[in-house]
Amino acid sequence: MHDSFLANVGAAEAGRTPLNIALLGFGTVGSSFAEVLAAKHSDRMNLTYIFNRGAEKKRGHPKAAFVPAGTVWTERMEDILADPQVHMVVEVIGGLDPVAGWLKAALEAGKHVVTANKQIIAQYGPALFALAHERHAQLLYGASVAGGVPVLPGIAQGLSGDGIKRLSGIVNGTCNFILSAMENGADYPEVLREAQRLGYAEADPAADVDGHDARAKLCILARLALQAELNPADVPAQTISRISAVDFAYARELGCTVRQVSRAQLDGPPETASIRARVGPMLVPRTSPVAWSHGTQNMVVTSGRFGGDVVFSGHGAGGHATAVAVLSDVLAIVDGSYPVQRTARRYPVSDDVLAPHYLRMVVDDKPGIISAISGALAKFGVNIDSILQRRGYPANRLPFVVTTEPCLRSTVEAAVAEMSGMDALVEAPLVLEILVVDDPDTD
Amino acid sequence: MHDSFLANVGAAEAGRTPLNIALLGFGTVGSSFAEVLAAKHSDRMNLTYIFNRGAEKKRGHPKAAFVPAGTVWTERMEDILADPQVHMVVEVIGGLDPVAGWLKAALEAGKHVVTANKQIIAQYGPALFALAHERHAQLLYGASVAGGVPVLPGIAQGLSGDGIKRLSGIVNGTCNFILSAMENGADYPEVLREAQRLGYAEADPAADVDGHDARAKLCILARLALQAELNPADVPAQTISRISAVDFAYARELGCTVRQVSRAQLDGPPETASIRARVGPMLVPRTSPVAWSHGTQNMVVTSGRFGGDVVFSGHGAGGHATAVAVLSDVLAIVDGSYPVQRTARRYPVSDDVLAPHYLRMVVDDKPGIISAISGALAKFGVNIDSILQRRGYPANRLPFVVTTEPCLRSTVEAAVAEMSGMDALVEAPLVLEILVVDDPDTD
Repeated sequence: MHDSFLANVGAAEAGRTPLNIALLGFGTVGSSFAEVLAAKHSDRMNLTYIFNRGAEKKRGHPKAAFVPAGTVWTERMEDILADPQVHMVVEVIGGLDPVAGWLKAALEAGKHVVTANKQIIAQYGPALFALAHERHAQLLYGASVAGGVPVLPGIAQGLSGDGIKRLSGIVNGTCNFILSAMENGADYPEVLREAQRLGYAEADPAADVDGHDARAKLCILARLALQAELNPADVPAQTISRISAVDFAYARELGCTVRQVSRAQLDGPPETASIRARVGPMLVPRTSPVAWSHGTQNMVVTSGRFGGDVVFSGHGAGGHATAVAVLSDVLAIVDGSYPVQRTARRYPVSDDVLAPHYLRMVVDDKPGIISAISGALAKFGVNIDSILQRRGYPANRLPFVVTTEPCLRSTVEAAVAEMSGMDALVEAPLVLEILVVDDPDTD
Repeated sequence: MHDSFLANVGAAEAGRTPLNIALLGFGTVGSSFAEVLAAKHSDRMNLTYIFNRGAEKKRGHPKAAFVPAGTVWTERMEDILADPQVHMVVEVIGGLDPVAGWLKAALEAGKHVVTANKQIIAQYGPALFALAHERHAQLLYGASVAGGVPVLPGIAQGLSGDGIKRLSGIVNGTCNFILSAMENGADYPEVLREAQRLGYAEADPAADVDGHDARAKLCILARLALQAELNPADVPAQTISRISAVDFAYARELGCTVRQVSRAQLDGPPETASIRARVGPMLVPRTSPVAWSHGTQNMVVTSGRFGGDVVFSGHGAGGHATAVAVLSDVLAIVDGSYPVQRTARRYPVSDDVLAPHYLRMVVDDKPGIISAISGALAKFGVNIDSILQRRGYPANRLPFVVTTEPCLRSTVEAAVAEMSGMDALVEAPLVLEILVVDDPDTD
């Protein structure tokens, strides 16, 4: 009973010339792309080239079995760029240099580009979009944020009717893996080693744990969702490497957990608007969708002026999930149903959001400490919401937590600077924003 | 520092004739659409007509202030259909008749159609898509499922590269409002009255609580995500009206809650595949994303062959959220970036999924009951996983729960039929599927 029917098949009707694809990179994502592409059994796309250093050796990769016999394996990028029969370049190598130059050359030659490269899109997006427009080529990058979770297409296609004012999310799976393992009792150095062993974290984990990866993704999200063009280097990023077991213990008492959150919001009327953006570890109430993600999962929450909060969640990384996002972009071009790139504006960036804050100090317990700390906060007009001191720690390294009522981070930082002279502080205080969860029923 | 730039602006460049829109219906969604459209300040769309019964009276609606002065208010559909200057019809009236005929006539006249009408799309989708294709018109329906949550555009645009095998979700906000209030202690009749008072439920709540609304949405989702064409009437639907406080008490003991779940999955190789689909109250583990939704929120989880599980969640209904989805579709047509309608096939439908089940009986407590019930289950090879009996109920109306190991629903139903002769059963046993949560790390 296979009563099949054919509906409107769009731009790329049966009978049109198939689109020839050059795949740049045959690592985890590239080889998965070949597999996912093969599973589509489509006669509208040909994989004509695979570029990889040591291409001959790559032919022995187990997933090379998914590559058609006629595909040319090459180490010569110039062959691909010079071949007018290549209609599209799919890039899954990563890094700025030399890849950005290749993508620019491909667009200049009028080839479509699909990329998973968050750095290139965050950094050079506007110039590349303008170039693509000029050459009537498409540049799609759905895999650059949250891998297999269709956040970018969902915003571009499904939320274009709203005005998004704020977005927050978990866009770095490595940090989420580390912090959700710490939530279950693991120690930072131990779980970082585990993440490295599993291939989730690099030998040098700085790009992940210090927030540079997440902030490139936040800039891409802000451009699409808020029409705000941000320079990644302008977005304050705080490392998760200072988070310790004691912070999870205190967070739990406060009904929270700790996550690396990337958030951006547009404040004020268009003429004088500014963007408040930040990446870093934050206390997240357990009732917030942002606390739902565990392991390497990603999650983005958009807050629309009319439609309220929308949550997207799923696998942020991994070869297959990323390959699905890349292939979905390829199909959008094949079908002629790609989203339109909208205009974005540059705004001043600040991280000075009004929010409750968590201050964790480690003190050598002596009389007068609470008085000195509360005095420094009072001097800057910071109201204390709660003071927490758990038992069971040595008196000369006593963790001690203050939460504040909503105040600007700059004010908290000023009060913390005031404390810097205090002998009793064994290490610099840790300041974390406490994410405010909105009423989910805004409509 | 407003360094603005213009990237590729797609099909509808500046200078093209604006698209003229006729809005059908000026109720909650229609009036919100006028508001959301006005907020876009776009010169690429004109609201030329508003159709509503009693159109003159509707001009006094508070949101009529968002309607441009030049818009024609009318009760005469024929004027709209006959006007070649109307490029697009936006329908937010609802119901099959007479609206389906109007949409058909609009498509026949080559007008684009954007609709929030789940019944028409579920029932007549294939015929209308074919007609739209023939007349080179677009038919978009992103608002028909999950209102403001971009599930349909997210699947169409962002997950087209995957092969989705299964989907499950909460797509009826009324049932979710009722069941999440019952989770917090409310009684069914009381919370149903509250839902009616708030305008979430109709005077006759059958379409919601008996699952007919949800199953139309499930059919739309299945067509898009699984490329499976289902007849709504073929999808088994179970009412939530038999759920009572005692079920939530037992569910809690089992680490679950109760939700109206709509699920569909494609089983077997393409040639002999069948669809297992069902709408009804199910026990949902608290660790499942499906248990996250509360109040009128909607949530859909898709499970891809390659990309694993993706969660979409947010406001399923309400004028603003639905209007955002409708306007996003309108913009997709204005931009020329609408998704392509893919081929779907008809499959046999069955609800016989292998799953653990929850059986709640109410018995007049006499010796030998457990033996009789377990005997009936054993006769059909159903293995008991747990037997629960809470204290504090009258002996002549004693609720009593059995959970089974994974088995077919048909087997459980057969065992329950076997019990029907038992004197001790005060009412017919309630059988609920227990939703199985997959390992989130499929990649």
